[in-house]
Order: sequence, then C-alpha cells, then structure tokens
Amino acid sequence: MSRITRLTGFPEWLPRERVVEQHVLDTLRQTFELHGFSGIETRAVEHVDFLLRKGEIDKEVYAVRRVHADERDHDQLALHFDLTVPFARYVLENAGKLEFPFKRYQIQKVWRGERPQNGRFREFIQADIDVVDRDTLSSTFEVELPLVIADAFAALDLGQARMHVNNRKLAEGFYRGIDIDDAAAVFRHIDKLDKIGPDKVADLLAADGLTAEQAKQCLALASISATDESFVDQVRALGVQGDLLDEGLEELARVVTAAAEDAPGFLVADLKIARGLDYYTGTVYETVLAGHEALGSICSGGRYDKLASDGKTTYPGVGLSIGVSRLVSRLIGEQMVTATRGVPTAVLVAVTDEERRRDSDRVAKSLRSRQIPTEVSPSAAKFGKQIKYADRRGIPFVWFVGDDGAHEIKDIRSGEQIAADPETWTPSEADRLVAVIQKEQS
Amino acid sequence: MSRITRLTGFPEWLPRERVVEQHVLDTLRQTFELHGFSGIETRAVEHVDFLLRKGEIDKEVYAVRRVHADERDHDQLALHFDLTVPFARYVLENAGKLEFPFKRYQIQKVWRGERPQNGRFREFIQADIDVVDRDTLSSTFEVELPLVIADAFAALDLGQARMHVNNRKLAEGFYRGIDIDDAAAVFRHIDKLDKIGPDKVADLLAADGLTAEQAKQCLALASISATDESFVDQVRALGVQGDLLDEGLEELARVVTAAAEDAPGFLVADLKIARGLDYYTGTVYETVLAGHEALGSICSGGRYDKLASDGKTTYPGVGLSIGVSRLVSRLIGEQMVTATRGVPTAVLVAVTDEERRRDSDRVAKSLRSRQIPTEVSPSAAKFGKQIKYADRRGIPFVWFVGDDGAHEIKDIRSGEQIAADPETWTPSEADRLVAVIQKEQS
Repeated sequence: MSRITRLTGFPEWLPRERVVEQHVLDTLRQTFELHGFSGIETRAVEHVDFLLRKGEIDKEVYAVRRVHADERDHDQLALHFDLTVPFARYVLENAGKLEFPFKRYQIQKVWRGERPQNGRFREFIQADIDVVDRDTLSSTFEVELPLVIADAFAALDLGQARMHVNNRKLAEGFYRGIDIDDAAAVFRHIDKLDKIGPDKVADLLAADGLTAEQAKQCLALASISATDESFVDQVRALGVQGDLLDEGLEELARVVTAAAEDAPGFLVADLKIARGLDYYTGTVYETVLAGHEALGSICSGGRYDKLASDGKTTYPGVGLSIGVSRLVSRLIGEQMVTATRGVPTAVLVAVTDEERRRDSDRVAKSLRSRQIPTEVSPSAAKFGKQIKYADRRGIPFVWFVGDDGAHEIKDIRSGEQIAADPETWTPSEADRLVAVIQKEQS
Repeated sequence: MSRITRLTGFPEWLPRERVVEQHVLDTLRQTFELHGFSGIETRAVEHVDFLLRKGEIDKEVYAVRRVHADERDHDQLALHFDLTVPFARYVLENAGKLEFPFKRYQIQKVWRGERPQNGRFREFIQADIDVVDRDTLSSTFEVELPLVIADAFAALDLGQARMHVNNRKLAEGFYRGIDIDDAAAVFRHIDKLDKIGPDKVADLLAADGLTAEQAKQCLALASISATDESFVDQVRALGVQGDLLDEGLEELARVVTAAAEDAPGFLVADLKIARGLDYYTGTVYETVLAGHEALGSICSGGRYDKLASDGKTTYPGVGLSIGVSRLVSRLIGEQMVTATRGVPTAVLVAVTDEERRRDSDRVAKSLRSRQIPTEVSPSAAKFGKQIKYADRRGIPFVWFVGDDGAHEIKDIRSGEQIAADPETWTPSEADRLVAVIQKEQS
C-alpha cells in the first residue's frame, strides 16, 4: 500500500474541483439533448487493427491484455484514443437498428500513450457530437453543428469562444483554379502559417514547384477572414473560377450567415484553417477561447464523406469534438470557475445526543423528500463542533432538533437562527444545490 | 474497416437502451447527492503492484502498456477492477486536502480480464458509496449507508429489493463463545449454505475438527433471520455469551431498527451472510432483487477497519457497491424499463422549402430557449416524409411554419393539429423530456 505515486498525464480532481468538471459535462449533455442528439457510450477498447487503420497514430495507443491471457484469448485490444473511430465501428455494427441521419453525442474518456515526459494528458474526456447518414449527408448539418457548439459555450459562460471555419471544397477548388494539382501539399504548408509566417510558407510552396504567382494567390486566400458573407467577395476579387470553388463558397457562406444571426461574434470564416484536410471533405472547424489561445483548439472537427464503410454502404458524417479535460484543467487551474461548496449538502442536522439520533434522521428524511440535500451529523459532539463540521465543508445550514419538536435552523454564514418546520422549510434555490461561480472577467 | 466483430463481455447499448442506463445513473447520482455524498472520479489505471496487493485477483486484471513504450516508460499499469482500490489510493494521495469523515460516491466503468468464454462482463459500470475516516469510524455510518441504498432502489422503482445484513463481530463473537478459534474457516463453510445445504456444511465443519455441538450451534446461528430486532432474542436463546457478540448484536440491531422505520421491508438481518469476511470487520451487506435472484447480489459491501494505510495513519471505511451494468442489462433484456422515445427531441420543426429553412431555425431556437428539445427537419421533403422522420424516432410533435408566421403544431400520435405560438407553446412535462416507463409488475 505504500507506493503512492502520482501518474503524470492522468488528471484527477478533488471533490470541489470535480463539481466544476461535472457542471461542464452536465451543461454539454443538456445542450446536446436540447438539439436532439442521442447519447451513446461505446466500450473503452477496440481491436488494435481497427484502431490503427490510420498508421500515423500507432505510437499513441495503449495496448490492453489480460495478465494471464491464454491461447483461447485471441483479441488484440487497445484503449480508444478518440471517440470517432469507436463511433464509426458502432455505426457499422448497429446500422440496421439506427435511424439515419443519426445524431449522437458521446462524452467519454479517451487514452493516448503519450511519452510520460511530454506533459500531455494520457487520459482525458472528450465530448463529441456527430451526424452520420447513409450514402449522402445534407450539408445542412455543417451549418447546424457549429450552432450547437455555440449554444454549449454560451451555456458554459466562459467568455468569448470563437470558432474558425474553412471549407475544403473552397480551398481545393481555388487551388485547382490556379492549376495546382497537389492540394494536400499546399494544405500542409498553409497549416504552418501562424507558426512560421507567410514568407517561409512562400518558400515552402516555391520548393514544391509553385510559381511565385501561385504562392501569392494561396497566401492571399489564406489571409481572408470575415464574420459575414463578405469573404465571398474577397475570394472573388482574386479572380479564380471553378465549380468546386463555387460550391465551397456557398456552403461556407451558409454557415457564416446562420451563425451571424444565431450566435453573433462566435463564428469567423478563416481561410487559413487547414486542419486534418486529408480526410475532411467539406467544412472544417477549430475553436479558441479568448485569453486562452495557448490552449490551442478546444473544439475541432469537420465533414468527412467516409466516416465508415462496410464495402457496400458508405456513411458520411460531420462532427465536432470538445476537449473537455483540457478546458476543465484550465478552468480549475486558473480558478475561472469555482464551486459554491465542497459537498452537495445544504443542511446538516445536528444530533443532540445519540439516544435521539433517530429524531435527527427523521428531519433529514423530511428535507430530502423535498429534494434538499441533507446529512445528519456523524457525532453527538458539542454543537460548536458539529457547526464546525458544516463550516469546513461549506454546508450553509445547521438544523437543531429541540425538545418537544421545537426545531431551529441556523444559517452559519450570517449566524441567523430561526424556528423552522421540517415539513415546510425550504432554502433558496441558490443554496439548495451546489453550483459553480464564474470569476469576474478581468 | 471491414473487421467488425462484437467483443464478448463488453456491453454496448442502442440509443433507446442507453436512455434506460442513463436514467439509472442519474437516479443513483441524485440519491447519493441528496444524502451529501461528493462525486469523484479516479483515473482508469493503477500501478499493477498497487492493484495486485490482494493476490487472488491477479488473473482478472487487464495490463495496459504503450504500444511503443520506451526505456523511460517505467510505469507498469493496469485497468482498475473495482472502485475501492482506486478510492483507497485517492484517499492516501489526497488525505491532506480532504475533510474526514469523507463521504464519496463514484460511478465508473471497471474492467476484469475474465476468460472470454465464461460469459461474464469484462467491462461494466459500478456505482459505489463509501464513508472513510481517519483512525476511527463511527458505526453510525453502517446504519446510514443501507438507508441511502434503500432510497436509491425506491427511486429506481424496480420492485422489491431486499438487503441481507450480518455483522462480523456478531458471528466471530459467537464462534469465540463456543471455543472456535478459526472463525474464517467457519465463514467459508457457512458461505456455502445456500448452495450445498446444512448437512454438507455440517460435514465440512466436522472435518475441520468442530464437535457436533459446535457445528449445530454454527448452523443454528446461520438459520436466524428477521426484519426486526427479534433476531437478538433468537441469538440469546442459543445461550452463547461474549463482549464481541454483544457489540455485534447491538450494531446489527441498530441497522435493522433504523431500516425497519425508514424503509420497511427493505432490510433483513440474515445471519448466514458471510461475504468476504476476511477483510470486512463489522456490518456486511448483500442485496437481491425479488424475482431476479439469479442475478446474484446487485449491491454488496461492508465495513473494513483498514481501507487504506500509509504506515502512520489508518483509514477505516464502510462502503456499498451497486453492479449497475448487471442490473441495467437485466432491465433492458427483459424490457422491465423502456424509454418513451429513441431521441431526446420533443418537437421536429418542418421545413417548407430550403429558402425558408432559417424561419424553421428561429422557431427551434425559441422552443429551445424554453428547454424544449427541438430538431429542425434535415430536408424540405414533402411533409408526409418529414412526419415520417419524426414518427420513426418517436418524436411526438411536428411544427409547421405557415405563411405570414401562421404556425401550427401537430401531435402525430393523435393527429390533432392546432395553431401555436413559438414564444409560448409548451408541451406537457411528460412529453418534453424523454423518460422511462416501468413495465407493470406481473
């Protein structure tokens, strides 16, 4: 029992901190359900060969094996590293039993076998929403999903979150229009724009064989951003033509217009966003929290025409994933959000002496029947000590069972003590349940 | 992507089934918080040597290792197989930051590396409540915990759950009083009573060197059960004396008396209960659901004087653990509980044509602002097709956006269609949120 070593990368919270995480999880779930997304959970493990179909992530996977595996135990299992791959498998496995388009949310832990020394989380919670359909998927969902996330961040009330959005058809159509064949290579370089600047990106593009004019046009496109449809005219002004470009412009314009009305200031068309463009095929999204840009994107995703396929049927999808632990870790670390108390309890019922404990139990039962979280003091110590029990935990009220059923309740914050009836006394809603408080934005 | 194989022992639910599981989880959490228990989560992995300190369970553990572990990666990790061992580690790790007595609940998945062929769950959810204190723990909590569970099962409304309770001090004190030294050996035999019957248990006891009179007394004790304090007189009638016996009788009487008042019919003193008596030191609990005895115990636990120890300080505790997946699997499998619909959505807002989709979006936004789960139809297909979208998912209402803002809402169950205002229309509370329905007890 003596070896108690913290494990780097596996965050755990104290009870008061867990209230903050639980609040975030509850808020996300409530928002997702308000938009009609069904909750599912998938198992924590997948077959290794299914998990590793994208070769590049194999270093990050945790393999799982029975300590005493025997010859009948053929499964090569690993912990899932995201919720998209398990969802794809779930869709294929249950396709006959799901209604398409299928809108689901999934809030679960994922694991990545990061090197212990690199400071990243190795276990963390993701909250994903995806819509998947059979054969074709309406681009309407590419408009809908960011609005769900906008609602979620509004409900979380963490200050300004801003989603940066691009469209792969737009970018690829533009590149085609200026005779660039290898769009993927350009995406990879444009992705570095914020890190290395336009001059160095131009060098990389030139090294790939682009003309100075082509490179200039790529950088001009990447420099465009707008919170309204005006980006369309800016792109048009670059003088490039093409059907795919038109389609991308129209799709992105719809996303931007809807968001400008529904969630003003939340969404910006940002044509340098190039995330994971090798498998995304339409809108792509990244989200930063103002004042916390160093966190990186706290909600990312996009449209992919082939979320899953069983050889006969293809399932296109669009999804967004919130990095809950990264966000919660920041909220807790900087005390941006704190819990009103460390326990759910609103009332501690004091015990006068052990012979009369059942009287206190009865008061507690009555309060609980009206949804007031209540504890009975574990000891019949002096009342001062029982009040201290409440005080140390942030429990606001202590109930005293007097002789002849004469009850009194003390608000230990103000010291006020009044007569009370266990059948009717009710705290304010703010005192009844533990809640979270946002720190004033400075 | 083609290899889609179900994994035995890793249950997953369809969205409509997940509603049932989520309902159980929410109900448990709400009950635990109503009783003042704080929620925590621990990481999924522990150091193998900490996990395996009880030698007998090593076969059941899943080891976890980075696929590309390198020499700097010393951690020998495994998935936790219960929530008690991680909780003990959490208490030791955070002892300086917790208030004792510390009451916590923990609802998480656990993993056991069962042989794939034995049909048991290898991944499942447990819901635990424990109270832990420093140095000493009041026996009051042994009375309190079963009452929390009684409330939880009452809230779940699954029919009659019955908790069978014994006390180790009682049994051990009784054995000492008839000159039996090896109480643990007797416990092991008594534990088989239901399986092999009293005659064969008597043989086993005789083989261990007990006299016929001693064996008879042990079996007489084990045959006692009562839903009130009358068990005390029954034990006294056996004529055995001792301080430890008295202490156990008094403790168990308190548990039974409190439960008889608070939760009539829930708890029974049952002196043959012998579960895990090698580390339990006071009250022990097992719970069966009437009509589903084959499930085994769905909630078990007890008091242990040494939940954790860092060499200097010892932390005694008492805990109960509900096997959620086992229970939920039965609820779903026998359709004892079903969801009112497959999606959270209460209203589908129809889309008249794509040009007017934003009008539908605005209605949805208005409904959602009043906490009514709402979807907008993904297509502007014929209304019949849009109604079918709702019908297939069990969405009760379809909203039609007429010309000049003339709105109508149709209850697709009754066919009734009425004028409605998006700012004020409200469904019944039963229709607003997806809920679960209990099957009539037959």
